[in-house]
Amino acid sequence: MGQYIFAQAAVAIFAITGVLGAIRKDRDILGLMVLGLITAVGGGTIRDMILDVPVFWIVDATYLIVAALASTLTFFLLKISKINDARYRILLYFDALGVAYFCIQAFEKTISLGHSFPIALMMSFITGMAGGVMRDVLTGRPNLLITTELYATPALIGSSIYGFLRILEIDNQMAGIISVSFIFLFRSLAIFYKIHMPRWLVNNREDK
Amino acid sequence: MGQYIFAQAAVAIFAITGVLGAIRKDRDILGLMVLGLITAVGGGTIRDMILDVPVFWIVDATYLIVAALASTLTFFLLKISKINDARYRILLYFDALGVAYFCIQAFEKTISLGHSFPIALMMSFITGMAGGVMRDVLTGRPNLLITTELYATPALIGSSIYGFLRILEIDNQMAGIISVSFIFLFRSLAIFYKIHMPRWLVNNREDK
Amino acid sequence: MGQYIFAQAAVAIFAITGVLGAIRKDRDILGLMVLGLITAVGGGTIRDMILDVPVFWIVDATYLIVAALASTLTFFLLKISKINDARYRILLYFDALGVAYFCIQAFEKTISLGHSFPIALMMSFITGMAGGVMRDVLTGRPNLLITTELYATPALIGSSIYGFLRILEIDNQMAGIISVSFIFLFRSLAIFYKIHMPRWLVNNREDK
Repeated sequence: MGQYIFAQAAVAIFAITGVLGAIRKDRDILGLMVLGLITAVGGGTIRDMILDVPVFWIVDATYLIVAALASTLTFFLLKISKINDARYRILLYFDALGVAYFCIQAFEKTISLGHSFPIALMMSFITGMAGGVMRDVLTGRPNLLITTELYATPALIGSSIYGFLRILEIDNQMAGIISVSFIFLFRSLAIFYKIHMPRWLVNNREDK
Repeated sequence: MGQYIFAQAAVAIFAITGVLGAIRKDRDILGLMVLGLITAVGGGTIRDMILDVPVFWIVDATYLIVAALASTLTFFLLKISKINDARYRILLYFDALGVAYFCIQAFEKTISLGHSFPIALMMSFITGMAGGVMRDVLTGRPNLLITTELYATPALIGSSIYGFLRILEIDNQMAGIISVSFIFLFRSLAIFYKIHMPRWLVNNREDK
Repeated sequence: MGQYIFAQAAVAIFAITGVLGAIRKDRDILGLMVLGLITAVGGGTIRDMILDVPVFWIVDATYLIVAALASTLTFFLLKISKINDARYRILLYFDALGVAYFCIQAFEKTISLGHSFPIALMMSFITGMAGGVMRDVLTGRPNLLITTELYATPALIGSSIYGFLRILEIDNQMAGIISVSFIFLFRSLAIFYKIHMPRWLVNNREDK
């Protein structure tokens, strides 16, 4: 039950940051709501289609409704109250928590279906990242695959830790708390100190 | 039978408008044919994959062939005869009819599979819009999610009306005729009078 | 067995050319690895989802690992040694071989599932092209659908030849060798002589 509320909250957070990332002058409520929805449920949708299990929001439309309400509410809140930098930064930390939860939950879902760790890692990545990447492609913004922000890296290391703890037969609740905390803290540090990928893992050459 | 012909006609219309929206100098027949195909069958493909039912053009390849022929024919027609503004506007009304049909048919398909109305509404949106959005992303054009054109709005209101009529136990043929007509008329008015989303449903602030 | 090694090699080649097509200043190893992965397995993933068969890299994660390793290795090789034009052109021929193999294998997979030739041709196209197109969309490059390069054309003609040979009851090994060779040679000629789509199959008009 607590986990269910957490899942819905994560969907709502993603919808909110989805709308915030997509909002520009002259964009309307419907387009922004769909972009919020895509950010919130897009990654999990692709995960479920690839794993060939029923898509989570088809099984339980509450996710869809929560994402739609959160997106719409965000639209109207932004009409009456400008988002300032401080508020936006607070949201980034919520987003970090959302990503952490989505990635670990996807990892657990995948291995509980009997798949191997590389596949679980891939699903963790897709679930956490694909929704935001789709929103960025649809709105013509540079997506996280072509920036050096430390967004996916904490999620992937944290997911690997989760897999490792599960090999050590640590139960999934404890392993989940540890790895979600790890991702959240790592990502929070990256936000706070504006940490980017180390230079030796970045291509420094001019284009060919 | 009449419905089958209507479905094929809707696919052909979407393929034609798909090519028209994608054509530019120095684009070739193969690329344009694929873009026409994506516009015509892309939305329904995503719908069927999410609903986990066989993809409609895998079950009946006629849709694929009709879309490919319509796209190719459009390419050659555009080589010999320039499309003028009047012809293009007439096509917009055909497109409105195609959207109306696709959305209502998707709504009915989804609820006949036992899904709830929010999911049917989502599928209606995906079926009617996703193909054109994919074409726009692939050709670098702004897609309908980031414009204020009244394209998806009539379709979603009409789909809701269809759902409402079905709750009232009105049979699907009658409900279909009413809601398809509604969408077509609403969208036609939006085209004719260049109606956009009302300003209070549009974000007016400058970007952060 | 030989075929399995060939399939893995084709995945590795696509991952390498995927990274090469995506690399720019200030892109990091993780983003590039994912772009390499998408180029390598993206097309086959969409094919399997549309055909509603288990996704190939879910069944055998070796494909995933090979693509990830090839992408990572390419990243580091490019850090220590600049790719020059000659090396890049050699890679294009390997890529031609990869496309040829992917397309024919997809065609055979589709008809062996009992589907018709138009569907097999569509799957051949999707398998060979969709990964690279997704990479281009994600990195903001013009994709092959909107250029006149002879990339998909050899693949589609070769796939048709394969279908024709199979109708003539030529066994799939022999038909495969003939059609893969055809695609490879045709594409190689297009690379070498910089052949583009003939002008009568290209739209020459200025935009409306």
